Amino acid sequence: MPHQPISHLKEGVLVQQYFLVRQVEGRTDKSGNPYLSLVLGDKSGAMVARVWSKVLAKCPGPFAPADHVGVQAQVESYKGELQLNIQYINTVEALRALGKDLKEYDPELLYQTTPYDRQALWEELWQLAESQIQPPLGQLVLNLLDRYREEFLVCPAALRYHHPYLGGLLEHTWFVARHALASLSIYPDLNRDLVLAGAILHDLGKVKELANPPAPERTVPGHLLGHIVLGWDMVRAAAQALDFSDPTLLLQLEHIILSHHGSMEFGSPILPKTREALLVNFLDDLDAKLKMMSQHLEGDTGEGDFTSYHRVLQRDLYKGSPAAAAHDREPDRDPEH
Amino acid sequence: MPHQPISHLKEGVLVQQYFLVRQVEGRTDKSGNPYLSLVLGDKSGAMVARVWSKVLAKCPGPFAPADHVGVQAQVESYKGELQLNIQYINTVEALRALGKDLKEYDPELLYQTTPYDRQALWEELWQLAESQIQPPLGQLVLNLLDRYREEFLVCPAALRYHHPYLGGLLEHTWFVARHALASLSIYPDLNRDLVLAGAILHDLGKVKELANPPAPERTVPGHLLGHIVLGWDMVRAAAQALDFSDPTLLLQLEHIILSHHGSMEFGSPILPKTREALLVNFLDDLDAKLKMMSQHLEGDTGEGDFTSYHRVLQRDLYKGSPAAAAHDREPDRDPEH
Amino acid sequence: MPHQPISHLKEGVLVQQYFLVRQVEGRTDKSGNPYLSLVLGDKSGAMVARVWSKVLAKCPGPFAPADHVGVQAQVESYKGELQLNIQYINTVEALRALGKDLKEYDPELLYQTTPYDRQALWEELWQLAESQIQPPLGQLVLNLLDRYREEFLVCPAALRYHHPYLGGLLEHTWFVARHALASLSIYPDLNRDLVLAGAILHDLGKVKELANPPAPERTVPGHLLGHIVLGWDMVRAAAQALDFSDPTLLLQLEHIILSHHGSMEFGSPILPKTREALLVNFLDDLDAKLKMMSQHLEGDTGEGDFTSYHRVLQRDLYKGSPAAAAHDREPDRDPEH
Amino acid sequence: MPHQPISHLKEGVLVQQYFLVRQVEGRTDKSGNPYLSLVLGDKSGAMVARVWSKVLAKCPGPFAPADHVGVQAQVESYKGELQLNIQYINTVEALRALGKDLKEYDPELLYQTTPYDRQALWEELWQLAESQIQPPLGQLVLNLLDRYREEFLVCPAALRYHHPYLGGLLEHTWFVARHALASLSIYPDLNRDLVLAGAILHDLGKVKELANPPAPERTVPGHLLGHIVLGWDMVRAAAQALDFSDPTLLLQLEHIILSHHGSMEFGSPILPKTREALLVNFLDDLDAKLKMMSQHLEGDTGEGDFTSYHRVLQRDLYKGSPAAAAHDREPDRDPEH
Amino acid sequence: MPHQPISHLKEGVLVQQYFLVRQVEGRTDKSGNPYLSLVLGDKSGAMVARVWSKVLAKCPGPFAPADHVGVQAQVESYKGELQLNIQYINTVEALRALGKDLKEYDPELLYQTTPYDRQALWEELWQLAESQIQPPLGQLVLNLLDRYREEFLVCPAALRYHHPYLGGLLEHTWFVARHALASLSIYPDLNRDLVLAGAILHDLGKVKELANPPAPERTVPGHLLGHIVLGWDMVRAAAQALDFSDPTLLLQLEHIILSHHGSMEFGSPILPKTREALLVNFLDDLDAKLKMMSQHLEGDTGEGDFTSYHRVLQRDLYKGSPAAAAHDREPDRDPEH
Amino acid sequence: MPHQPISHLKEGVLVQQYFLVRQVEGRTDKSGNPYLSLVLGDKSGAMVARVWSKVLAKCPGPFAPADHVGVQAQVESYKGELQLNIQYINTVEALRALGKDLKEYDPELLYQTTPYDRQALWEELWQLAESQIQPPLGQLVLNLLDRYREEFLVCPAALRYHHPYLGGLLEHTWFVARHALASLSIYPDLNRDLVLAGAILHDLGKVKELANPPAPERTVPGHLLGHIVLGWDMVRAAAQALDFSDPTLLLQLEHIILSHHGSMEFGSPILPKTREALLVNFLDDLDAKLKMMSQHLEGDTGEGDFTSYHRVLQRDLYKGSPAAAAHDREPDRDPEH
Repeated sequence: MPHQPISHLKEGVLVQQYFLVRQVEGRTDKSGNPYLSLVLGDKSGAMVARVWSKVLAKCPGPFAPADHVGVQAQVESYKGELQLNIQYINTVEALRALGKDLKEYDPELLYQTTPYDRQALWEELWQLAESQIQPPLGQLVLNLLDRYREEFLVCPAALRYHHPYLGGLLEHTWFVARHALASLSIYPDLNRDLVLAGAILHDLGKVKELANPPAPERTVPGHLLGHIVLGWDMVRAAAQALDFSDPTLLLQLEHIILSHHGSMEFGSPILPKTREALLVNFLDDLDAKLKMMSQHLEGDTGEGDFTSYHRVLQRDLYKGSPAAAAHDREPDRDPEH
Repeated sequence: MPHQPISHLKEGVLVQQYFLVRQVEGRTDKSGNPYLSLVLGDKSGAMVARVWSKVLAKCPGPFAPADHVGVQAQVESYKGELQLNIQYINTVEALRALGKDLKEYDPELLYQTTPYDRQALWEELWQLAESQIQPPLGQLVLNLLDRYREEFLVCPAALRYHHPYLGGLLEHTWFVARHALASLSIYPDLNRDLVLAGAILHDLGKVKELANPPAPERTVPGHLLGHIVLGWDMVRAAAQALDFSDPTLLLQLEHIILSHHGSMEFGSPILPKTREALLVNFLDDLDAKLKMMSQHLEGDTGEGDFTSYHRVLQRDLYKGSPAAAAHDREPDRDPEH
Repeated sequence: MPHQPISHLKEGVLVQQYFLVRQVEGRTDKSGNPYLSLVLGDKSGAMVARVWSKVLAKCPGPFAPADHVGVQAQVESYKGELQLNIQYINTVEALRALGKDLKEYDPELLYQTTPYDRQALWEELWQLAESQIQPPLGQLVLNLLDRYREEFLVCPAALRYHHPYLGGLLEHTWFVARHALASLSIYPDLNRDLVLAGAILHDLGKVKELANPPAPERTVPGHLLGHIVLGWDMVRAAAQALDFSDPTLLLQLEHIILSHHGSMEFGSPILPKTREALLVNFLDDLDAKLKMMSQHLEGDTGEGDFTSYHRVLQRDLYKGSPAAAAHDREPDRDPEH
Repeated sequence: MPHQPISHLKEGVLVQQYFLVRQVEGRTDKSGNPYLSLVLGDKSGAMVARVWSKVLAKCPGPFAPADHVGVQAQVESYKGELQLNIQYINTVEALRALGKDLKEYDPELLYQTTPYDRQALWEELWQLAESQIQPPLGQLVLNLLDRYREEFLVCPAALRYHHPYLGGLLEHTWFVARHALASLSIYPDLNRDLVLAGAILHDLGKVKELANPPAPERTVPGHLLGHIVLGWDMVRAAAQALDFSDPTLLLQLEHIILSHHGSMEFGSPILPKTREALLVNFLDDLDAKLKMMSQHLEGDTGEGDFTSYHRVLQRDLYKGSPAAAAHDREPDRDPEH
Repeated sequence: MPHQPISHLKEGVLVQQYFLVRQVEGRTDKSGNPYLSLVLGDKSGAMVARVWSKVLAKCPGPFAPADHVGVQAQVESYKGELQLNIQYINTVEALRALGKDLKEYDPELLYQTTPYDRQALWEELWQLAESQIQPPLGQLVLNLLDRYREEFLVCPAALRYHHPYLGGLLEHTWFVARHALASLSIYPDLNRDLVLAGAILHDLGKVKELANPPAPERTVPGHLLGHIVLGWDMVRAAAQALDFSDPTLLLQLEHIILSHHGSMEFGSPILPKTREALLVNFLDDLDAKLKMMSQHLEGDTGEGDFTSYHRVLQRDLYKGSPAAAAHDREPDRDPEH
Repeated sequence: MPHQPISHLKEGVLVQQYFLVRQVEGRTDKSGNPYLSLVLGDKSGAMVARVWSKVLAKCPGPFAPADHVGVQAQVESYKGELQLNIQYINTVEALRALGKDLKEYDPELLYQTTPYDRQALWEELWQLAESQIQPPLGQLVLNLLDRYREEFLVCPAALRYHHPYLGGLLEHTWFVARHALASLSIYPDLNRDLVLAGAILHDLGKVKELANPPAPERTVPGHLLGHIVLGWDMVRAAAQALDFSDPTLLLQLEHIILSHHGSMEFGSPILPKTREALLVNFLDDLDAKLKMMSQHLEGDTGEGDFTSYHRVLQRDLYKGSPAAAAHDREPDRDPEH
């Protein structure tokens, strides 16, 4: 039986397939018996699931966020919302240990990810850095991309507000970097290498701020130091290891990273004091806000011409754009051709 | 004697040439005699000038801002700053009426203007609109460009903060429009026509907000209504005259114009509620700030690595950018090639 | 059986009467059967109502906000709140088509409206404009009142915060206009015509910002442009049609309308730059805030000396005012006598 | 020789008359000799004056702010501004002691004062309190007016921003109180006694915050405590002395005084929580701002349609109001007729 | 049966003991029968309790906040949270009147109080004032401590945010006063008497702002005037009664009290203008914020390294401090040894 | 002739002594001849000095900020302010090269420095770190103090606002560290090592942010990165070099340094999330503000009870404190005795 996306499940259906555990909470029912309230997810969304006391007795787990689980469950309606009444649940690891057949198990189906081909994005980003940035900045950027390749391919761009999914950081960086290249054609007197290196590295610290990409959470250094200074430190350390030859140039790249939030109340300890830093700040902010808008528009299920209020953007959005009709979900991957 | 740019004048020199009157103030000297304190300008800058009592008796004027004047004067130093001690002054009109030879008179030398060829910019902007924007928005944009062509060619983009010179509005619009085109290659799912029309028309109201381009000042409607609503009204009126066929599309263009300052505290009565409006808002703000930075860097004459404090940007700027070395003062006019 | 106000309904009662549909939502019960959750309203308030699956089968509707419906229902208590368990429901149109007797049907009973006699308010406002404002402003005001009479009689003053009911805009305008007249006796050197015209027209744009007065919602232009510029445009268009004779005077009236929110962060694209604009700004804000206070005080059902926190006013209010005792609910309609 | 108003003095004139000393500063001239730089004032304005070393030797003073002085001086121009070169100066007290004839001395000519007849305003204010406010609040208001009558007649309403002259507090209070009476006709359900008592007493603390009315300065308690709590304390003390019979009513009056600045960032320790307090807050703020506008418009000597920027109001003002033409400087003193 | 702390109660247990009534609300069950929903508290916490219809019939109360009640109840689980299903409830007064044995009744067990020995704190505070503050301020402080001793021993420091329990004000004052003494050793040139008097008296007005300490609520004067001016008035009145000998010194103490919130937007009508006032402002704010942090850390039951978001502090807190391990719950009462 | 402090110089005096060059500016006099306008300073203050054209011919310099110069000059008065008319000037280096007798030259007299004995402060700070902080934090602090000892002894705490003189950073750190020790006696449950290490290291980055201590200026890294992240990096690097054994403890120290400005708008990229970080933030801010107040009070030369307005503190200050009388200029160096 092929995987049925969570967003397509209907009341009354019996499902037998794999999910990603997103949240786990132990509770007690009215008779005082323990049960589990889970949130299970796949690529298409998430749904509440209950492992009632009796089932729990034979499927005791334990279960933790980011586990992959095989599940047999009934889709039920409770207070007007669908949920899974679980009849059997076990982790993929345990199933494998039990010698079960896992041929239907495809982890790719379980994660929310960027709609783009991450491998392709990565290669384009690498090529952009390789072909467009002169040494010594080019060497530094490639060194860092190489060192953090694995993290970059999975890290989200943020916990919640924009690109909060596998590969989100890569997607965001790819947009900002390509946009920077396009902007340089309009403002050719800016320092090309600085702009492109800054665009690619501005959010590098995210890979240390956020952990556990499939069910992302902030790390302790992420909480106590923040991604801005973490990223700065990573660049500084790499430059030191490479004996970076131009300290003034390096200082300007460091400045771009520290100032990329654009104002102190948004967490940059310093304001952009070069045009290169200002451009990276704007392109980063713009891509994040455009994505927040897209996500809010796509997630909107209401009927009116306007979405519900977006708490971060502090406004509702207009849905009736004629662009929506022409909207090409497969984005143009090479803006130069 | 060819025109000597104000920025090149040195103490002790005698000049005999034409200037633009920027400010006029009547004063009284220590003996109670009236004299004039003027600010005279040319393409390269401005300088204080005095018409002392005795000279005033034979060159009584009157003189008003925006007058073109023929002047004979000594360059002197007063409290460490250069100024012109005027020995003769008269308006070009009066000189012409007196039958004087005006062959050295070239008004183009007197104005601060965009460093770009305005006619060429205009044609590119027109072509961009013509080739890239579909009807009915394309038709509307061309109609408005045609109607306000003359104003567009001279209007500054602002009184003081950015592009405050002849053709400044055109230069600013040309940058924002070309940048919008470049951005659309990165965000191809935005409505192309709306973005480009919004980019070209966003500051149209400036031509009614500002008057007297060579020595610009705010008009009464500019003061009491502001360029945002003035521009909106101009677009609305033109659309009505053209029987614009798609009211929803028009509404979105109107929204871009009203919301292009991005937040209410900066004078937009409404926040950007579409991605198209957000993009135009960012590209406008970015171009204005990059220009403020460039102007402040170019105007800086100090010796340190940082400029003086910029009151609007609320920061000092770093001058030591390696980009400065590679800075190509003749900007690339066609980013697509 | 006469209409029983919703605010007087008690548990266990059977009602058979007419209501206004305010909200409609389709849901599914625990067995997966569809039912409707409605909010029904009348002049006195609103109550949740359920059309369970079985009833829905015979009364399928459809039902939409602003429908008038004939209902037979039982008043029940659910989680401590009363709600209507509907046994029969149909729209008045359908009932009429079915030849039912509608003699108990009185639409006036179904709407929340201003407590004042709207017709009387209208006539007083008209007379104030006619008797107190000289031409050409008087003519312009009467022209606009005449053109938008129908909308003015029903439009609320706001969606939620103050006067959010039929005739709210008229009531608010009537207070602001009469207060302006009273203030002119204290500040007689203000331009009387401008103040009165501004007071009457300041919120005119509301009639285009808000639609469907009985169950008001913001229109698309209301969302994308806002009532401030919509109202300005209406005044400008009317003046143009009338060949308004004094452009400077008109400009000042336009300024009052655009600046009447008093500051840019509240959505005025321009600050009040005349004393007339400042006065209209204050009287508008004062009436809105006094009304918010009155509404919050009247809606408070708690026992203490202070109301609950008012989110917009950002404070709780004192209820123990001795004025409450003397409070004359039938307001003085003619402040001059 | 009759007094020549400072605002009418012209270069070259010799004056022999009385002035008010506003500021005194001892300085040293280029040769190291001491001289005095004074600011002398009269009803019409103020002018810088110098007592050069030689004159100082024979007219040693001392001189202090608020002194009345007899002066003989030449009006001269220095850097384009007029100033008095003093040939003789002495205080009125000293002149009197020397037996000089002081028949031209009229202190009324020396002060900037309210343009209204202070005695008449006082009587109207008293009558308003007497006829319109019921006991016990009426009694309390009259008691306080009586106790502080003398201060009220001279105290300015502020050091600088509005009504900064003799009788300014009385003028401001008289406007606010009469406006409150007018507003009560529009909002008759407000507590009349509270509104009127609050309107009259809201700024009472100014008489303790400001000292030396002709050349006003802030007192130490004014600096360290502020007029809001000083006024509250005065009302509280008077009520205690009168055994005020209604503590709840008194509390609400106290609340009006403490909250009359309308928000905490403007120095009210509490927000207005009654409609009466809100009304007094608005009428106070409105009168202050209208006066600031009038003062700025009257003081403007420029030629354009707009004044210079007003630092407190944060805007320039439009001067071209047709109201200016009809402006009746002698304000209507009885708004009821 | 000894008192079982609420925080230790487990599902299924039958309790028979005394509680403090914190909240009372009358409700109706699904059959329309009235029942009571209470919040009962003791020293360790609070729990929801229901008096269902049948029990209510025999235990009709009435019950009010701050009542002490004897209760027999079953601990049940409802939606995963524990609550008390009450089988019998009566007030201690009624039980006493009925001649019941109350020997298990110990009111001290029912209140949330400071973890410190209030009597000991009080004596230390008294001694600090007596030994460290010279007359006349010392005398004034002792006079006020003596007069408000009873209130000080019970009053919380705030309704909710910090030290919201019996003796909270005393605990907070004791910390601020001792910290002030310690700070004076670092800044010995500050006026010792003023700092200590200000530290002890800064929040004195709380005893009039808050009433009913066991279940604290804001009084009407607390709402309409606020504790800052109430406290100032209390100090002023006491000083007057004592014929305080040094008015300038008194004024500075008054200034400390009025300015102790440090900025106008936090409710001080005046900013700290002396170093003594600044120090008291900082020590007060610091103690409140450290306590908010401690309370939030102690109340946190989650598993991660960070607490939930604290709405007032606008951040989450780090829990993993090694200090936690060394945390000595019995605080050092004498910092000098 | 012993050094005469600048603050004691009087008009007419001839001085022959040494000064520190603070600023140098080349200018042109009215005849077009070059002259130098200098600011010369010593321990007591600064004064403008002119090297007119003729003197410049024989004393051509060059002179640069931070030079020590031997000077012969006349004290003159110009526009009421004293200035030095220089008759001879040369650098100490040049004088030494010329074999001049420099026995009166004492560089200690030329600098504005902390009023404390820097060597003694340093030793106390070292002892505090050594005796009070346990390993591993103690070891880290001592390592950093040792490494940056030289810079610490001269660096100011800020360019302008507080402690802007030699040793200012040391003085500020010494106050904050001792205050932290005192505060720990009040809040003994805080982590003692973290608080003390944070107090000592919080501003360490200043030694890289500021250069040229006698005439301090911001370095390029200071401008582009800021002292907060520079200091964090220094601590991180030192810990790495020492193989710091407790990464969680280190992270908390890093957090204290990054968050010590207390809010993002003041440049901390992260808010204090531990009580230790909050305490260091408060003690740092308090010491800076108390010093700003002291400096402003000491610098005030006016006569009233209040100083002029302090632009950073946004208030005037009260001067009449009785503490001023008791003010002991020689501060207590050992608060424990």
